[in-house]
Amino acid sequence: MTAKRPLIALLTDFGTKDFFVASLKGVILSINPDVRIEDIGHEVPPFDIGAGAFILSACAPVFPAGTIFVAVVDPGVGSGRRILCARTERHYFIAPDNGLLGPVLERERALELREVANPDFRLAAVSPTFEGRDKMAPAAAWISLGVAPASLGPRLADYRKLPVKGPVFGPAGIRGVVLYADRFGNLITNIPAASALKLAGAKRGGRLRLRAAGRVLARRDAYASASEDEVFFLEGSLGLIEISAREDSAARKLGIGPGAPVRITAGP
Amino acid sequence: MTAKRPLIALLTDFGTKDFFVASLKGVILSINPDVRIEDIGHEVPPFDIGAGAFILSACAPVFPAGTIFVAVVDPGVGSGRRILCARTERHYFIAPDNGLLGPVLERERALELREVANPDFRLAAVSPTFEGRDKMAPAAAWISLGVAPASLGPRLADYRKLPVKGPVFGPAGIRGVVLYADRFGNLITNIPAASALKLAGAKRGGRLRLRAAGRVLARRDAYASASEDEVFFLEGSLGLIEISAREDSAARKLGIGPGAPVRITAGP
Amino acid sequence: MTAKRPLIALLTDFGTKDFFVASLKGVILSINPDVRIEDIGHEVPPFDIGAGAFILSACAPVFPAGTIFVAVVDPGVGSGRRILCARTERHYFIAPDNGLLGPVLERERALELREVANPDFRLAAVSPTFEGRDKMAPAAAWISLGVAPASLGPRLADYRKLPVKGPVFGPAGIRGVVLYADRFGNLITNIPAASALKLAGAKRGGRLRLRAAGRVLARRDAYASASEDEVFFLEGSLGLIEISAREDSAARKLGIGPGAPVRITAGP
Repeated sequence: MTAKRPLIALLTDFGTKDFFVASLKGVILSINPDVRIEDIGHEVPPFDIGAGAFILSACAPVFPAGTIFVAVVDPGVGSGRRILCARTERHYFIAPDNGLLGPVLERERALELREVANPDFRLAAVSPTFEGRDKMAPAAAWISLGVAPASLGPRLADYRKLPVKGPVFGPAGIRGVVLYADRFGNLITNIPAASALKLAGAKRGGRLRLRAAGRVLARRDAYASASEDEVFFLEGSLGLIEISAREDSAARKLGIGPGAPVRITAGP
Repeated sequence: MTAKRPLIALLTDFGTKDFFVASLKGVILSINPDVRIEDIGHEVPPFDIGAGAFILSACAPVFPAGTIFVAVVDPGVGSGRRILCARTERHYFIAPDNGLLGPVLERERALELREVANPDFRLAAVSPTFEGRDKMAPAAAWISLGVAPASLGPRLADYRKLPVKGPVFGPAGIRGVVLYADRFGNLITNIPAASALKLAGAKRGGRLRLRAAGRVLARRDAYASASEDEVFFLEGSLGLIEISAREDSAARKLGIGPGAPVRITAGP
Repeated sequence: MTAKRPLIALLTDFGTKDFFVASLKGVILSINPDVRIEDIGHEVPPFDIGAGAFILSACAPVFPAGTIFVAVVDPGVGSGRRILCARTERHYFIAPDNGLLGPVLERERALELREVANPDFRLAAVSPTFEGRDKMAPAAAWISLGVAPASLGPRLADYRKLPVKGPVFGPAGIRGVVLYADRFGNLITNIPAASALKLAGAKRGGRLRLRAAGRVLARRDAYASASEDEVFFLEGSLGLIEISAREDSAARKLGIGPGAPVRITAGP
């Protein structure tokens, strides 16, 4: 179902203690007072493009068709880095071309890539330290008013991707890494749960085990199936293997975080 | 005054650094693009049902009639615990049946209790770790579109309550506990200010004193009536007795928090 | 462009863990269910009027004409301090009269100043600890419904200002102070970049230097022009001189914050 009122969704590393997020909103509403604005969040760790890219790709798929995402994690602001506008089958994305859109554009194929370069669709004065306010927010607001991405700037052939972190399938099982640690201390890996289950199937019902931080963990169906102090793994809400502890932080208990290697094996 | 556009208000322990809150919003807007969404807050301490229940009961009464509340503090997600839909004289509430709705349903009598169980009103795939996204957010969105609670699932006779924390009235005064410590370090007790004033009246204008953390505190009318370094008590904005310090944290100064016992006496 | 739906923007020191912000929203929506509400932010440090005043003045100018701002940083709540309603050429502001509106009313001249005093436009019961909920939020909601500021209370001749922190221009350059440290550790000073550039011009292209925390810093055009470990200064997004470090915190590296003196000189 397509929203009747256009929707702009904001993801940044701006935090909420300053005037940055409010500045984006004020600029957007000054251009299109009727657009709807929702926050994805503003607590991406400063300059952490990987975390921002993960969060965007994790939630964008459930947003309605037509949503315009503005994602600003932008250590290169004021340098020569380009600003992207990507149109996919379902959504629009405005972001610096620094890898932030990499994962989400693997999930939603880009039908059109444009550089946000047309001075007609930015603020009159542009600060080299706040292009989110001066270029990206206005571009999103103009798109919400019906301006075509083609008006924003020249077509681009490609966009920057993040170093690939796909899991590796081998005779010794599936090797992957932790992609993200959430607020609760759950460790989300890059191993699709479906691949892990296939591995178990290939071993004729072999029991899955996950090795991480020098420990061997068992699989549970849900948090409630685990015992009190257990660190375990399960299929998480994104369809990826996650390491968890019951009402506790697996990240703290294991002492690991994003980038840590994990391995899944199936055996008797 | 009833809102012309339906309103969904969200309270969770999800924090704002991850994709969880955005996932609720995306799911809701994909079902009802025109519903209004407001955040109550997402900083309930992880798994702290008591704090979530307190916050919900503290603010729900001032929301307009027809508001649909979604409250997710859900350590039992994926277990057999039920999901509730409660309709009161003024509002709708969707939450896990773990006590989270206890206090608010003491303030607003439930006219109808339903289990959220009908697969027609949830996402096609349900994760055992994120029923907020897959069951509760969709249920709220469907209610905002006019679906009756009766369509969501079977009628329930009762819901889970939290252990009662009512104050005890006796010859030695009123015994109560600290229910909640707010950001400023104010300690909100379970003693209604009206009861304390009645006690003072019964003692013919006896002066009220509050004992907590081994100290005896005096009553003030407002923050500004207290002296600089004083810890004191007053009638708080919820009509309950609160312990405060002027531009400082009473919680830190007294070294106590939720659960700490307090006693109010009246005397010369 | 004026918003078709009235807009209320909220700035407070309430944090987001409690029920305070939600209470403002509930009260506003109970009076005007159709008003739009946006958060500026709620993480002003408790009782820090200066920080709140800075944030408000930094973002208010980009909000659409007609926006109604409610700003609550209110250590004097329940005392005799007045509540202000200011109407400027572009906006409305409701706030305690404690200096919070000082900086923004230097940028947007007040056309009308009223005390918020009329009991018809507040909640029936007013708590001496939460006038944001009981007086300020209702006043904003009524203005959003078309009530004139004149209805809220008597005309005021003046409002409280903060101690002036203007920079001092002298033969030894420009002396100023740090006004604000943002989330990234950028130190925003009170020295307009235009004044600094004029100083450089007067010295016939003299090179600008900034002295702070016992160090002498060089000027860069953008973050990307600085070297890896450098602490430098540049024209920030508010048109003021800011001290920055590349993907790092200048505040931490220099060990200074708001109030710290800075001096800009021009020389060979």
